[in-house]
Amino acid sequence: LYSEKVMDHFTNPRNMGKMEDADGIGQVGNAKCGDIMKMYIKVKDGVIEDVKFNTFGCGSAIASSSMATEMIKGKPVEEALKLSNQAVVEALDGLPANKIHCSVLAEEAVQAAVEDYYKKQ
Amino acid sequence: LYSEKVMDHFTNPRNMGKMEDADGIGQVGNAKCGDIMKMYIKVKDGVIEDVKFNTFGCGSAIASSSMATEMIKGKPVEEALKLSNQAVVEALDGLPANKIHCSVLAEEAVQAAVEDYYKKQ
Ligand code: FES
Repeated sequence: LYSEKVMDHFTNPRNMGKMEDADGIGQVGNAKCGDIMKMYIKVKDGVIEDVKFNTFGCGSAIASSSMATEMIKGKPVEEALKLSNQAVVEALDGLPANKIHCSVLAEEAVQAAVEDYYKKQ
Repeated sequence: LYSEKVMDHFTNPRNMGKMEDADGIGQVGNAKCGDIMKMYIKVKDGVIEDVKFNTFGCGSAIASSSMATEMIKGKPVEEALKLSNQAVVEALDGLPANKIHCSVLAEEAVQAAVEDYYKKQ
């Protein structure tokens, strides 16, 4: 049902937790299942130096966010803004069709965090 | 958003894992979110001696299943069959309205495990 990469990121999530001194915080909710995702970014010279996420969401949401944080860490904020849930799902070697909405949660949380960072500039 | 009991059962889930020598196994899927729950029971003299669950579901599903396993452990199988998701939600001091479907997953998994046990008798 789930790829090895999904199971890996679910059982050993990267960058999970809070961040006290975040430069941008995004919180989004999932209309389909009611879950919540919070994403924190630390930015220096326009580059995402650190990123953390927190969720009460399911295994697919955890795996998607974990992968998304790895994909944007060390990247310019404009690039993070372009991260699509399709790219995250591909990097995870796929997700079941009815769990794609969980990866959207990760994409939206990254965008919300970057937008919050822009607003604060 | 979430009660202390929900957070407790989410962060320290009781009876999570697999069971090799189960007398009944129930697996159910959630139409609303696409999540899956597996419940295992060990029965002796009509009483549930041990119970384990496994899920890829969200925090509310983990908390609901953890609470449900505590509520049926040591009880006759007929009683477990009557466990309602309302009773589980009450024992957790409530869940947000849009997360009630996650507790239904726990109720249905318990029933499926007991029915599987009956079938094997
Ligand atoms: S959202 Fe799927 S079990 Fe909670």
